[in-house]
Amino acid sequence: MEQQFRARPRDQATEQIECYILQNDLAPHSKLPSERDMCSMWQMNRTTLRSAIRRLIVEGKVYHRKGAGTFVAPPKLERTLQDVKSFTDQVLQNYRSMQTRPLDVRTAAAPRSVERKLGLAEQSPVFQLRRLRCINGQPVTIEANYLDPAICPGIEQYDFSNESFYNVLAHYGITVDHGHQTIGITYATEGESELLEVPVGAPLFYVSGISFDSQNRPIEVFKSVTRADKIRFSSILTTQPKEKVEQL
Amino acid sequence: MEQQFRARPRDQATEQIECYILQNDLAPHSKLPSERDMCSMWQMNRTTLRSAIRRLIVEGKVYHRKGAGTFVAPPKLERTLQDVKSFTDQVLQNYRSMQTRPLDVRTAAAPRSVERKLGLAEQSPVFQLRRLRCINGQPVTIEANYLDPAICPGIEQYDFSNESFYNVLAHYGITVDHGHQTIGITYATEGESELLEVPVGAPLFYVSGISFDSQNRPIEVFKSVTRADKIRFSSILTTQPKEKVEQL
Repeated sequence: MEQQFRARPRDQATEQIECYILQNDLAPHSKLPSERDMCSMWQMNRTTLRSAIRRLIVEGKVYHRKGAGTFVAPPKLERTLQDVKSFTDQVLQNYRSMQTRPLDVRTAAAPRSVERKLGLAEQSPVFQLRRLRCINGQPVTIEANYLDPAICPGIEQYDFSNESFYNVLAHYGITVDHGHQTIGITYATEGESELLEVPVGAPLFYVSGISFDSQNRPIEVFKSVTRADKIRFSSILTTQPKEKVEQL
Repeated sequence: MEQQFRARPRDQATEQIECYILQNDLAPHSKLPSERDMCSMWQMNRTTLRSAIRRLIVEGKVYHRKGAGTFVAPPKLERTLQDVKSFTDQVLQNYRSMQTRPLDVRTAAAPRSVERKLGLAEQSPVFQLRRLRCINGQPVTIEANYLDPAICPGIEQYDFSNESFYNVLAHYGITVDHGHQTIGITYATEGESELLEVPVGAPLFYVSGISFDSQNRPIEVFKSVTRADKIRFSSILTTQPKEKVEQL
């Protein structure tokens, strides 16, 4: 079964730069050697090296400052995929600051798929919150939440630039207990591109799902688009008890 | 806090097509109305409609056959992010067939980061398996696994086109019990593009992680790139007991 190993020069170059950062314990914002030095150090041509650097830039591992060189990027914020804890809590736990800009706060007709998931009749009004979230001042994600307004009358009055969504729900005695979500890749629309400061068509994580309270009552349907160069998702693997998987 | 709702024509068009599929319960491979009909049905211009269809194509929700029209795509396979169960099992559970093409099966020096995670000294030989996985004949993911050859002597002899990796490990009395992984977005290299039949630079899921046996001994380091138009990941949300998160 042994097969010929096909060299992939760009992958090797990428690996080499990553190893260099690791082995020299380079802190975030440390400068990498010049292109000329890296080429001679690893005996590769300029095209391969640049292609590797470009890949590391889009992956958010290094960044480039014109005229100044290439630098180690600060680590991405990791967002746990199994935890219903609010995004705000996850960010603050990582000693970063979070800024929120409400984009839409309204009660209006929602897509039929949302109504259905919330157990509402067709054309029911749905409370809709759409927010731009920034970490340390940089736009990272646009989140939309949909709720049955009957469970949270007057929710439009809250100032969502200052209060976390889950804190607001707590005022109504609502606690999110469990849920499920799917993660895909989508492409930035014009509006998303402007808000997130990425090119139109840039790939983004697309997360959508639903959460429930402990009585299994649907609380919120959510959708978000997230910059993959700023956030990576993480997940803990376990041997799943079969019942639990089938139940959801 | 009520703010002006900015119309996003393409998003509305996308939503409209998705709703149409949902409300008419269109089965996979059903044909959508002609572009002309959709435009007049929803009073939108051709440019917006086409842009919405393009977005749905890259998201894997519809597909286009030249001269024939636009069709509903079969649902993506969902891969659970918390389950250590093998990919093969997850695919078969969904009544699809899986084909595997081993690309590399060898014991050789591995990147330092891999050695470190496996608890091996520098320059130790590492067993490396790289496979192309297809579902129903279509290439979907390239998976790489790295293991300490000391725990599985002679593993190169197995035919990985027929046997699941976890089944082979079972021959050595090894059972993967838990682990963790991170999910990011990367871009298809030339080699990946050829194998996965996507354009160079196409965004792919990049998953990497490590798994352990029940004695917390590291078993395998893994990395994979996956087509986002074929697979979506799913995750179950729970209120995490604090100890469990910090432990890992």
